[in-house]
Amino acid sequence: MLRYWTAGESHGKTLLAMVDGFPAGLTLETDSIDNELARRQGGYGRGGRQRIETDKVEILTGVWKNTTLGSPITLQVVNRDYKLERLGDLERPRPGHGDLTGAVKFLGPIRAILERASARETAVRVAAGALSKQLLGAFGIQVIGFVRELGGIVVDGEEGDLEQQKQLRDQSIVYTLDPTRDDEIKELIDKTGKSGDTLGGVVEVRVEGLPFGLGTHAQWDRKLDGRIAQAVMAVQAIKGVEIGMGFEAARRPGSQVHDAIVYDESQQDGPNLGYTRPTNNAGGLEAGMTNGQPLIVRAAKKPISTLRKGLDSVNLNTKQPEAAEYERSDVCAVSAASVIVENVVAFEVAGALVEKFGNDSMDELQARWDLFHDMAKRR
Amino acid sequence: MLRYWTAGESHGKTLLAMVDGFPAGLTLETDSIDNELARRQGGYGRGGRQRIETDKVEILTGVWKNTTLGSPITLQVVNRDYKLERLGDLERPRPGHGDLTGAVKFLGPIRAILERASARETAVRVAAGALSKQLLGAFGIQVIGFVRELGGIVVDGEEGDLEQQKQLRDQSIVYTLDPTRDDEIKELIDKTGKSGDTLGGVVEVRVEGLPFGLGTHAQWDRKLDGRIAQAVMAVQAIKGVEIGMGFEAARRPGSQVHDAIVYDESQQDGPNLGYTRPTNNAGGLEAGMTNGQPLIVRAAKKPISTLRKGLDSVNLNTKQPEAAEYERSDVCAVSAASVIVENVVAFEVAGALVEKFGNDSMDELQARWDLFHDMAKRR
Amino acid sequence: MLRYWTAGESHGKTLLAMVDGFPAGLTLETDSIDNELARRQGGYGRGGRQRIETDKVEILTGVWKNTTLGSPITLQVVNRDYKLERLGDLERPRPGHGDLTGAVKFLGPIRAILERASARETAVRVAAGALSKQLLGAFGIQVIGFVRELGGIVVDGEEGDLEQQKQLRDQSIVYTLDPTRDDEIKELIDKTGKSGDTLGGVVEVRVEGLPFGLGTHAQWDRKLDGRIAQAVMAVQAIKGVEIGMGFEAARRPGSQVHDAIVYDESQQDGPNLGYTRPTNNAGGLEAGMTNGQPLIVRAAKKPISTLRKGLDSVNLNTKQPEAAEYERSDVCAVSAASVIVENVVAFEVAGALVEKFGNDSMDELQARWDLFHDMAKRR
Amino acid sequence: MLRYWTAGESHGKTLLAMVDGFPAGLTLETDSIDNELARRQGGYGRGGRQRIETDKVEILTGVWKNTTLGSPITLQVVNRDYKLERLGDLERPRPGHGDLTGAVKFLGPIRAILERASARETAVRVAAGALSKQLLGAFGIQVIGFVRELGGIVVDGEEGDLEQQKQLRDQSIVYTLDPTRDDEIKELIDKTGKSGDTLGGVVEVRVEGLPFGLGTHAQWDRKLDGRIAQAVMAVQAIKGVEIGMGFEAARRPGSQVHDAIVYDESQQDGPNLGYTRPTNNAGGLEAGMTNGQPLIVRAAKKPISTLRKGLDSVNLNTKQPEAAEYERSDVCAVSAASVIVENVVAFEVAGALVEKFGNDSMDELQARWDLFHDMAKRR
Repeated sequence: MLRYWTAGESHGKTLLAMVDGFPAGLTLETDSIDNELARRQGGYGRGGRQRIETDKVEILTGVWKNTTLGSPITLQVVNRDYKLERLGDLERPRPGHGDLTGAVKFLGPIRAILERASARETAVRVAAGALSKQLLGAFGIQVIGFVRELGGIVVDGEEGDLEQQKQLRDQSIVYTLDPTRDDEIKELIDKTGKSGDTLGGVVEVRVEGLPFGLGTHAQWDRKLDGRIAQAVMAVQAIKGVEIGMGFEAARRPGSQVHDAIVYDESQQDGPNLGYTRPTNNAGGLEAGMTNGQPLIVRAAKKPISTLRKGLDSVNLNTKQPEAAEYERSDVCAVSAASVIVENVVAFEVAGALVEKFGNDSMDELQARWDLFHDMAKRR
Repeated sequence: MLRYWTAGESHGKTLLAMVDGFPAGLTLETDSIDNELARRQGGYGRGGRQRIETDKVEILTGVWKNTTLGSPITLQVVNRDYKLERLGDLERPRPGHGDLTGAVKFLGPIRAILERASARETAVRVAAGALSKQLLGAFGIQVIGFVRELGGIVVDGEEGDLEQQKQLRDQSIVYTLDPTRDDEIKELIDKTGKSGDTLGGVVEVRVEGLPFGLGTHAQWDRKLDGRIAQAVMAVQAIKGVEIGMGFEAARRPGSQVHDAIVYDESQQDGPNLGYTRPTNNAGGLEAGMTNGQPLIVRAAKKPISTLRKGLDSVNLNTKQPEAAEYERSDVCAVSAASVIVENVVAFEVAGALVEKFGNDSMDELQARWDLFHDMAKRR
Repeated sequence: MLRYWTAGESHGKTLLAMVDGFPAGLTLETDSIDNELARRQGGYGRGGRQRIETDKVEILTGVWKNTTLGSPITLQVVNRDYKLERLGDLERPRPGHGDLTGAVKFLGPIRAILERASARETAVRVAAGALSKQLLGAFGIQVIGFVRELGGIVVDGEEGDLEQQKQLRDQSIVYTLDPTRDDEIKELIDKTGKSGDTLGGVVEVRVEGLPFGLGTHAQWDRKLDGRIAQAVMAVQAIKGVEIGMGFEAARRPGSQVHDAIVYDESQQDGPNLGYTRPTNNAGGLEAGMTNGQPLIVRAAKKPISTLRKGLDSVNLNTKQPEAAEYERSDVCAVSAASVIVENVVAFEVAGALVEKFGNDSMDELQARWDLFHDMAKRR
Repeated sequence: MLRYWTAGESHGKTLLAMVDGFPAGLTLETDSIDNELARRQGGYGRGGRQRIETDKVEILTGVWKNTTLGSPITLQVVNRDYKLERLGDLERPRPGHGDLTGAVKFLGPIRAILERASARETAVRVAAGALSKQLLGAFGIQVIGFVRELGGIVVDGEEGDLEQQKQLRDQSIVYTLDPTRDDEIKELIDKTGKSGDTLGGVVEVRVEGLPFGLGTHAQWDRKLDGRIAQAVMAVQAIKGVEIGMGFEAARRPGSQVHDAIVYDESQQDGPNLGYTRPTNNAGGLEAGMTNGQPLIVRAAKKPISTLRKGLDSVNLNTKQPEAAEYERSDVCAVSAASVIVENVVAFEVAGALVEKFGNDSMDELQARWDLFHDMAKRR
């Protein structure tokens, strides 16, 4: 079992992720984690906070000579903008945030809620996911996340293999797969920002090189599609999750949805064992299990809830109508969301991998990977 | 903590749901559970299995004189069509099902997978949800599920209150809120069935009368939006989940998404404590917590994976291309899905209710409900 | 992950255990489960209930042609003495039972508590354990439980191997390893019964053939010693648990406690890989992991809480002193406890086995067992 | 749900405990946590490590202006003796430790195991427990831990109330309730240390002021006795746990074990609601629930596994017999164990409190406490 929690407030000392159940014997590097943290801070339309922070991960526990010990790994991202103790409470809850509901639920200050509900927390969710990608990488499993829609602008294009797609994405300032669309999108963001408004979008994650049988059909709470949906929907501002063809599958007849099975002997030594699919509308998951095809997950991010032009709210003390408070924020964080969703999906996939192949030592996991594929071929 | 598992195979003796953590002292009746079971079997376009079964729930444990004991409640739905021991294995996996991937994962027969992966299991997920609705009902919380889209036909219309909507839905043979659209839909189903094809759709669930603060923002795995997404996506054939405005929220500016906060003193004794929203695009959830507004969840169901006209597949023994096996199936089960999703959402909400208000005795829960609302009003 | 819950009341229709995460492909038989159920009903000094019931297990789900499917397995033991609906409440709580505390906690009837708190529930905990012993047996892991003390009479003697010990135990009417002591013990039970009193005792469980490394040191809630302690202490009437030398280890210097490590090449192909210990005071567990030696667990069972001669109590309605109610009971159930503790320990060990070796298919588990031992030898 | 994990290695940078589910609105102070940390380092017979470290807790997350936010609380104890990166591996596993079994399980270095298996980790388990005692204290629940036996020397004496017992304990250099026995015990420790040997002992924990009904009888994995047993047995070097009369209860007739129920109107406003017991052999737990009496838990700690005089072992590389490695250690850490066990028990009790009364805000919890006692009195 691979599991993690996070801790930390938006303006507190530090953010932490504690990862339990990570296999021993994997040599880690922090550059790729820092790279994901930097990508999370990037995109176009970000606000002042990202100029203050330059997130770097520190591995506090679980590692010796850069190699995992099998004991819990703690990842820390220190807040430069630590000022929680100097901050006061708010009176006018911001719609779209947890301000009002949290203040009621906990019978306390809004500050107590927003500091934890803030998307600042996603820095360490990204760190945990980036850690898990090093585990996936040891098995040749690759993950990419990118922006599919931004403020209504749809960006198609997924030519080339995953490596080429990464290059395209990294050339795009907003993390789409088509950098030639950047100007159009920047213009929209600029215009929206000037009007004091905000934007959302749709992000997509693909995982390639997956074996058969991560997840299970046997019990509802162990199905991998459910677990991924939980992890993604629990990301701040996400309001929708879909797998493969998703909502579009609801609109087509079955003959245009289900992916035929074809046997291609030349691929029998790959993770799909030779079973290919001309289409991948299932998005790599059937009956809660990976089916040897790429995993495809999309998520809908609502626009930033903090609007410079203010939203109608109420003063909790007077109950009189007032504009919501404004705490420094972004115009658009869809690019960041693509990084966050990519990494929480990666973590769930790594969890399912460990459930299938064990979590003692990398040597044993890799031998079991080979063993399983040998046995599966002979089935 | 309220939790449940299910057990049972499609053609096995029986299906069971074991529910742990249900409060003591609630007087149960089984009619409303049976009603949900019958609704799950209904709709238009269903196949032969539904004619064989007439699902009735039996409460095996946890109840004395129709009242819950606080001990685990086991719900049983016996399979009339019990014939598992007479059935053999399959050779040609059906695309869209877990046949191929399960056979590889477990290195065994396809039969072993399909019997458990089958949507027949949802009968007891519905039973567990229907049980939990009796708990919700004791607090005035009402739940409705209906069909929003079927095979691409969108059915709007949500006039009236939830009770009136239930009446409309129950008049519709396909469980939409507009029975006048039934003929159009039946025609599509008939036409599709004749062509050997199948249909999917979009279902919607609404929960009204919710208090503030079910779920939490504090840890990712306790956020209610995430938990609902897991429960829904883990339903057979569901490929997408959205809350409130969902994917549409990703396409609009923030000023057209976030729900202004208005204080209406006349509602201060209701569960929303007077805090109303002119819109409910958040679908009742902000920062992973209920915000006093109706919960709105939608799910995309793919078309039935078993097509009479067959899909391209492979014989696992010969590796030669053959048509997929055909096991008796429906043309369309979107109406059933609306019942299933309604009930799994209800269960998660009941779980969050119990997490907030406790799970010892109904008397204590109800006193705490009043206590919380008194304290929240004075906050 | 292997996990289970139970459901059912003492005089309800039925008792159930739902086991989730059991590997596919194991051929089951019910005789050995029934045998454990019969042993649980046996011993000397048992009361009327055991004459009414002749417990037999029924496997309701998870099996096809006697082989596990990988889906949840439900075990049922039907109560012949089903009469819950005819029973009334109690007024005078019985000390040692949950009567008083449960009635207060749940603000309800005593009947609601005692029906679930009753040791009758252990029938299905035994069934789940007996099921898991079939899994252990496939790896050559053997389990024995027996009575070590009864009412203060200590019975030593553990000559021979585990198979011979089982024969001795099965010759003893009270399940000790020395049937020649039976008369002495029967006399004590008879005398105690006549005086209206009851007896407890100490039971012991041994597990042989264990590999290295079940459990882990890495996180407190995954240590196997802790998990076993929970499972055992959660058995009705158990008030103490110890592993290996247990409390005696607290009284000796370290040089007389810790087990030297010796390498014996002739055993290198066994599960201990050649690492033997002249003593086994650790009881097979070091740092929360199995160490290749037999697991030894002992548990203290308090005397039956229901005394025919009555204990001082209070009428809950009048608050006046009265004798506690008497519900039919035994004089001594230590023999039964030896069966129960044996089986709950077996379940935890099977859970740890599955955590180390996976829970997909038996074929894969067994191949991984061999693989691990090969790799460990070459470490 | 209140839950926690720890992370950190013995000679790593830092130790951390992450506590999730702690209620909002409790004003914390760190002095009482530091006091427990200091007590854990104390006692007589401790080695060099304790002279290097002066453990202080730092609260990294979850607090604003000294008040809990309801978000996860991270407790940090920095290792002064951080030198992990300079340390090498061991070749000769130390009996009693996880060295051999961990090296086999993880197919890796002994160092990887011992750094995490070390009792150094208990510093943050103590910190988490000490935090939870502040929660318990807000309800008038008091906890004490002390040494009951050391190296076979039994120390009776529990005169006075819990406050007076704390004073006596704090006067005793080895944390017994009778400081007049200190010299005798010191002499034994000195003698043992000179001979290169080590000592264990028995520790006891009492919790007073508990309400009825923490824990439950309804499902085996939620019984409080089981949870406490797990938490205690999972403490390094603990080999036995007992509750109340424990193993002695197994040796007496029921009439000398079970605690009569007496109603004393004068106590009806206390947490026991007037239901007193002339004896408390059950140790405050019946049927897995607190019964209004003091909770009593005892644990057996084996002697320190690292002996200066060395134990017989094997060189893992050569398989030749050699003396086990010696890493700096203590002669006796029973006093420390009394602090550790006290705090892990406190945490489990706090967890059960939160399960019964909720974990949103302290204001709500306290109102619910009053509400429950009012309702229970009127039952």
